[in-house]
Amino acid sequence: MCAQVIYDFSAEPGNNELTVREGETVTVLNQNVGGGWIEAQNSRGESGLVPEDYLQVSVCLFITDYTPKQCDDDDDGEWDEEWDDARSTGGYGETTGEEEGEATGRNTHTHMKISLNKFAFSKIPNPEVYLLAKLPPKGKDRLAIYMGDVGPVWLYPQSPLDCVVADPKKGSKMYGLKSYIEYQVTPNTTNRPVNHRYKHFDWLYERLLEKFGSAIPIPSLPDKQVTGRFEEEFIKMRMERLQGWMCRMCRHPVVSNSDVFQLFLTYRDEKEWKTGKRRAEKDECVGPMVFSTIDPEAPELDIIEVEQKCELFSRFTKEMDDGVKDLLNVGNIHWKRCTGPLRKEYQKIGKAFQNLSSVFNTSGYTGEATLTDALTAAGKTYEEISQIVAEQPRKDLHFLMETNNEYKGLLGCFPDTIGVHKAAIEKVREGDKMVAAGKITTQDKGTMAKRISIMCYSLQAEMNHFHSNRIYDYNRVMQLYLEEQIRFYETVRGGKRVGSIKW
Amino acid sequence: MCAQVIYDFSAEPGNNELTVREGETVTVLNQNVGGGWIEAQNSRGESGLVPEDYLQVSVCLFITDYTPKQCDDDDDGEWDEEWDDARSTGGYGETTGEEEGEATGRNTHTHMKISLNKFAFSKIPNPEVYLLAKLPPKGKDRLAIYMGDVGPVWLYPQSPLDCVVADPKKGSKMYGLKSYIEYQVTPNTTNRPVNHRYKHFDWLYERLLEKFGSAIPIPSLPDKQVTGRFEEEFIKMRMERLQGWMCRMCRHPVVSNSDVFQLFLTYRDEKEWKTGKRRAEKDECVGPMVFSTIDPEAPELDIIEVEQKCELFSRFTKEMDDGVKDLLNVGNIHWKRCTGPLRKEYQKIGKAFQNLSSVFNTSGYTGEATLTDALTAAGKTYEEISQIVAEQPRKDLHFLMETNNEYKGLLGCFPDTIGVHKAAIEKVREGDKMVAAGKITTQDKGTMAKRISIMCYSLQAEMNHFHSNRIYDYNRVMQLYLEEQIRFYETVRGGKRVGSIKW
Repeated sequence: MCAQVIYDFSAEPGNNELTVREGETVTVLNQNVGGGWIEAQNSRGESGLVPEDYLQVSVCLFITDYTPKQCDDDDDGEWDEEWDDARSTGGYGETTGEEEGEATGRNTHTHMKISLNKFAFSKIPNPEVYLLAKLPPKGKDRLAIYMGDVGPVWLYPQSPLDCVVADPKKGSKMYGLKSYIEYQVTPNTTNRPVNHRYKHFDWLYERLLEKFGSAIPIPSLPDKQVTGRFEEEFIKMRMERLQGWMCRMCRHPVVSNSDVFQLFLTYRDEKEWKTGKRRAEKDECVGPMVFSTIDPEAPELDIIEVEQKCELFSRFTKEMDDGVKDLLNVGNIHWKRCTGPLRKEYQKIGKAFQNLSSVFNTSGYTGEATLTDALTAAGKTYEEISQIVAEQPRKDLHFLMETNNEYKGLLGCFPDTIGVHKAAIEKVREGDKMVAAGKITTQDKGTMAKRISIMCYSLQAEMNHFHSNRIYDYNRVMQLYLEEQIRFYETVRGGKRVGSIKW
Repeated sequence: MCAQVIYDFSAEPGNNELTVREGETVTVLNQNVGGGWIEAQNSRGESGLVPEDYLQVSVCLFITDYTPKQCDDDDDGEWDEEWDDARSTGGYGETTGEEEGEATGRNTHTHMKISLNKFAFSKIPNPEVYLLAKLPPKGKDRLAIYMGDVGPVWLYPQSPLDCVVADPKKGSKMYGLKSYIEYQVTPNTTNRPVNHRYKHFDWLYERLLEKFGSAIPIPSLPDKQVTGRFEEEFIKMRMERLQGWMCRMCRHPVVSNSDVFQLFLTYRDEKEWKTGKRRAEKDECVGPMVFSTIDPEAPELDIIEVEQKCELFSRFTKEMDDGVKDLLNVGNIHWKRCTGPLRKEYQKIGKAFQNLSSVFNTSGYTGEATLTDALTAAGKTYEEISQIVAEQPRKDLHFLMETNNEYKGLLGCFPDTIGVHKAAIEKVREGDKMVAAGKITTQDKGTMAKRISIMCYSLQAEMNHFHSNRIYDYNRVMQLYLEEQIRFYETVRGGKRVGSIKW
């Protein structure tokens, strides 16, 4: 695999890092280093760590056209387990990439297909299909938008949906030649577990993206930032992140209420699953057409207002994306310092104290014990501090980083979602010209104005959903982070007293 | 000034350090960087910081023979103020060097003389003068050694001598062309202050070294590790270190009781000072002859026992010297990390939180205030932590480093002192051969055996003095250090709660 460098990165010398320049192409040596780092090699043969955010990983073995992918349970042979999990995030120069899949065991494969960065070949869906289309009669799947205290909001269910992803189990097929992991997913509505493999989650993601992507940013599945080197750790980490992804989907009133999502959570047997799948794959109300199911109970918005709101959301998500990446970046650096140089330095201080204690013990002078005990205790305390400092990131930074990573992924989807709206605004602005050219009627122009207003209500509802989730998530993560930090300083301080008590 | 590299040092990249190899010669750019670092430039023109312990600084302008230096108050012109303070420490590859002296003001000088590393030209005093000399009749200045619980000990005074060095005042002479600093020294015996310039301390050091150096390690004056860049800071630092040096001398029963030390502390007028000085400079009982004044009330020691003890002390002081230097080294590195990269990193984390808070503030969503306040508070707390972390070394490491620096200086004197004993053992071991060759009589041989036993009691008394002081000093410094460390973690933890209280 190779990667395109998307930002300049200057290596901190002595930290096994690699300086790279924007536009450079590097070879990926190890994508599973962890902590948000990738080991890469440049054209001069130098190798070292580069933050994964700075690289756009792609497959450089051979390039094939992107073929839409289906989850066909009867044709597992074509999509080899090790390669069917790759997913792109898109957005602001996001990292995309392949990664080692579920089956790292004795799975052998005779051929492989490579799923490429989808967004490299796709374009933002054309909103014209909705703006000018003759709409089908209103069906039952209407998406309601109400005016809440904060403005337009989706209709939220009385009791929120939730689910638990647990109990990963290894399965195999084709006489043990192919192995996979199956997760148990239990929704709080039925309380009845259903089993899903990663590829089913992936299929769900594809459906949600296709159906709602123009109106709702659908975050990609967590499959890139894999920090576990070993299979068990990997499975655990993936499960935790699938849980996080499912939670976020459950919390979304539109997504959680959709047929395809309900199917995924509540199918009762293989037959129901297969039938539901076929129906979902044949759904024609996808892409910008999803707006045709939206009914805002509010007056039509002026195009200028629409544009302003769109601009505001675009700017906010871009700026938040920058802020989140900045935090992830310093977080990564701090993580590395704590587990690397700082740990070693405290160890050295500890050793220096203990060495001095050993030397003092050889003095042959009486009445030395109190001092040498104290020096040894201080030395050991420093070695403990070294441990505590090195382990601390896993306790506090981890959750902060995971949440921000999740938001990085989510924010990476906004440009595409907002892009549909911007393209629609463009189209509506051309309305007069199009009428003059005889391409559309005056009535069409009126329809477009009405529909872009509907789109804008949808975007506002989605932004309000995003904001309320964001406030909830960041409140929670900051509280946990600060509590852990306090606990950290208390632990170290406590450790010190152990060293001091002997005085 | 240039410097010889005495140990390999690998620069930590990105920290403005310079990699140097043992034996290399570098140019000293700035000796007053502080924190135990010297800014140096290698022959390839690269420059950076090197720990001062790794360099042996010398003057490379021109080399003159070492001329014994006298403190002649009437001849200030010859020893220019800016250059008369340099002193060497000797010992295990000690840093020696010149430094900017007291008068950094408007002092101009037309010529300068350079005092060189004395030990580069001196040899260890020949103990033969004592071992074989016909001794003068026993005078009144006898040095008593008793058998204490820990073995041979010096006779300690009932109430220990102490003094306060304070109130540095700038004086000038030669119509203001030359300026100097005068310190007030007040002993607890007379409680009457006397005034001394640095050069007088230096004169005292020279006398003590000359008189007692063979039996007692006399630490050099604190004039090398000058961390203050500004005159006031420099004067304050020098005063504190002169105070430390005087305290150590006061605590020594032999030194504190000597005529020359008493003269320094208690002279009543210029005449008494000058008369006393002349007498001290004419003292003939110096070097190894000091052993002739020692009266141990104990049975004669076997040469094998003498040699074993000498070896033990030699090994102990060498190993402690290594341990102390190791601690100073990691201490320096830690100091630099706290005030450098760590400070910056906490600042960046603080800024990242605050940036995110600013972005969130632009959301236009209501009910954001609690979160943005908390993020801002967390960000500010991190900036405070950055400050606390950067200032911490001055609070705790400082005293630990100062004490260890003092011991580094003291331990650096042991090789010379122990060297006299080793040379004497060598001489006594040759006794039979010398008798056979007719160089000495059998009676002489007996005298030598008796005298080396006396020397050994003296060395034991001195080692016991060293050990008891060492235990006292290190107990004290460790306690203070750990207390400050606890206070540090409590402060940071307290700071956190400020950030958290808003939740």
